[in-house]
Amino acid sequence: MSIAANNPALGSWVEVPAGSDFPIQNLPFGIFKTNQLTPRVGVRIGDQVLDLKSLFVLGYMENLPFELSDFDAPFLNNLMKKGKKATRDLRNRISKLLDVNQSDLQKNEHHVNQVLLAAETVEMCMPVQIGDYTDFYSSREHATNVGVMFRDPANALLPNWLWIPVGYHGRSSSVILSGEPIYRPKGQIKPDPQADPIYAPCRNLDFELETAFITFDGKALGDSISTAEAEEFIFGMALFNDWSARDIQTWEYVPLGPFLAKNFASSLSAWIVTLDALEPFKVDGPKQEPEVLSYLKYEGQKSYDIDLEVFIQPENSAESRVSHSNFKYMYWNMAQQLAHHTVNGCNIRCGDLMGSGTISGPTEDSYGSMLELAWKGTKPLHLVDGSERKFIQDNDTVIMRGFASKDGVRVGFGEVSTKVLAAK
Amino acid sequence: MSIAANNPALGSWVEVPAGSDFPIQNLPFGIFKTNQLTPRVGVRIGDQVLDLKSLFVLGYMENLPFELSDFDAPFLNNLMKKGKKATRDLRNRISKLLDVNQSDLQKNEHHVNQVLLAAETVEMCMPVQIGDYTDFYSSREHATNVGVMFRDPANALLPNWLWIPVGYHGRSSSVILSGEPIYRPKGQIKPDPQADPIYAPCRNLDFELETAFITFDGKALGDSISTAEAEEFIFGMALFNDWSARDIQTWEYVPLGPFLAKNFASSLSAWIVTLDALEPFKVDGPKQEPEVLSYLKYEGQKSYDIDLEVFIQPENSAESRVSHSNFKYMYWNMAQQLAHHTVNGCNIRCGDLMGSGTISGPTEDSYGSMLELAWKGTKPLHLVDGSERKFIQDNDTVIMRGFASKDGVRVGFGEVSTKVLAAK
Repeated sequence: MSIAANNPALGSWVEVPAGSDFPIQNLPFGIFKTNQLTPRVGVRIGDQVLDLKSLFVLGYMENLPFELSDFDAPFLNNLMKKGKKATRDLRNRISKLLDVNQSDLQKNEHHVNQVLLAAETVEMCMPVQIGDYTDFYSSREHATNVGVMFRDPANALLPNWLWIPVGYHGRSSSVILSGEPIYRPKGQIKPDPQADPIYAPCRNLDFELETAFITFDGKALGDSISTAEAEEFIFGMALFNDWSARDIQTWEYVPLGPFLAKNFASSLSAWIVTLDALEPFKVDGPKQEPEVLSYLKYEGQKSYDIDLEVFIQPENSAESRVSHSNFKYMYWNMAQQLAHHTVNGCNIRCGDLMGSGTISGPTEDSYGSMLELAWKGTKPLHLVDGSERKFIQDNDTVIMRGFASKDGVRVGFGEVSTKVLAAK
Repeated sequence: MSIAANNPALGSWVEVPAGSDFPIQNLPFGIFKTNQLTPRVGVRIGDQVLDLKSLFVLGYMENLPFELSDFDAPFLNNLMKKGKKATRDLRNRISKLLDVNQSDLQKNEHHVNQVLLAAETVEMCMPVQIGDYTDFYSSREHATNVGVMFRDPANALLPNWLWIPVGYHGRSSSVILSGEPIYRPKGQIKPDPQADPIYAPCRNLDFELETAFITFDGKALGDSISTAEAEEFIFGMALFNDWSARDIQTWEYVPLGPFLAKNFASSLSAWIVTLDALEPFKVDGPKQEPEVLSYLKYEGQKSYDIDLEVFIQPENSAESRVSHSNFKYMYWNMAQQLAHHTVNGCNIRCGDLMGSGTISGPTEDSYGSMLELAWKGTKPLHLVDGSERKFIQDNDTVIMRGFASKDGVRVGFGEVSTKVLAAK
């Protein structure tokens, strides 16, 4: 762990506005480009982006196990290939270079001008070339709500749910960056349960409030990762909106799970916040009963106190906050998810993305999807512009934000924002 | 279409043994290496492998839109990136070079020695860097058998099955090449339905007889591929064994589908047989009733008559054929699968792999999985060594073979063979 980087007293010579998600204690990684600069690795601080390629070329990465091609790259994968220790050392080096008490970079105005760019002048790119995308289903409140609505309220949780961090495979080709619009998907829906299905645009378009974690290279096929080892294989986290077409899902998902209801798009935020930056915000997770099987047991705190919000912004209107949840509500933690994913010998690779599943809290205003918030359309939400929402409408923009905060330090994710366009 | 390459009368100056899967009418693509040669693109003919990198260097690829890096590559993806027309022209060029009536290459003994290698002297590699792997569930007989065994015999097919080419996402990281052994997976199983689940090695390990198709780059996210366009986006096919842990599957799969029951391994054959090579073997598919929705309608023959067999070979014993099926039994064809996959705007990429789903025929000896062949363990199979099988045992090797045959021309896939090792 980087002690320095998480020191609440630490300050940077780069100005960080009050309330910023990106103080020197955060230092998340991303990929950016400009009209002049090809895609490359950047680190965010305050309202600035630090150009790691230029920093490398100027000689500030000495004695770190990186090459130019790790920074001069359209994805973070090359960098992540170097593993946990290397990326941790890199973040610590950057922390030191930005430390108000360190003069190496600070006092070299010519270099500072080369390596720091105003965030508003750069274009963010997809941070990771995703290998496989897996989505979990780890919020007890979400699974319970879905069970109450669609199955048996008296037995809302399925029998396996308290034993298994349920997961399923998603589609990596359609994971998109925050800011990219999506088209309302078309497909088979069955609005009249007594009639044949029809081919039509989705009518019940939904978001799912999730976080995602990005992995380093794992072990060989056939080997497993224990809960104790799991964090060594996780680079960092981001916000994730796992778009869902509820009416397509209802008709298609038995028996093999959601497919076209999900794979038209999933939106990822641009900055990957390292686990190291989130370390100070660790908390206990919910008590797990029944006692989990041996390979799912863990020691210490494995959950994180991360405040999560969802906003809907209709065209030419203000944002309305429709959900306020927290990552800490998750029943299954990331270490258990990864241990479960690999218990059968399944291999993970550098750049795999694992979604948390919808993160719903215990109260009605903390649910992580429209399905739950508007309770299957029976309790429409009222937006600040006076309109109502049962599901997401064309030209709505859905924005998710998240941050952890403690002892005066705020480590945030920025946002994942996606506008919905009418079906093509 | 290549008329020449599919001419039954066409012969090659390269000797092709009787009954070979690889006459000049086939010319499948793969990746091979030797102790001396780095991984590169090869084409199989008879018992020989044609080194396309060397062929390119020697100038035989003139006026084709390929570069050295398309052939001097560890995967076929670079080559496939050039699209249908380019790869078709390439196969036609190779067909011409190998034609007994063409002397360009044939008469240059020095070149022939450089570009032709005995297949037994090369090591095959994974042919494709797979982006996303999707598995379908398109055999009516298989879906019916599973429904009879696990659900309601009177309503074996679920309500959506005749409307939707049901599919789900699989794991691409654990797709392995024929010849690589696998370890029996461990996981949660529930052998006593009244007791708690346990963590143990899978007891009901199964194969699934499938084919897979490999895609070219598709359209942009948001656009769909019609059934009429679908073949333009398919490079070729291979044999595919989608390993399944039935006891893990039973406990985990409701409600989000199979996960750890499948993602420990899926085995792919080494040679990708182009759709062009399979064109002469097109046949009508099963009649589809009810009439499918508009985006699933198609014209012409979209199915293929491909003979498929499964063999079990215990350690130090002979092979026993346990299944004899055919690709033509599939209810949904590949054009429909691809049209369905993209109807919601989901994008496909060069190198995506789409599994057919278990291909079961109408008779008990044509079922495509042990689950069906031994009917949930109630009808054990008898192997030639006198042993019985309800599922696959440690040290069994499962081998799948397939070929199409018509008018004296046999176009085959070789085999996909995988040995099962004891759980780690």
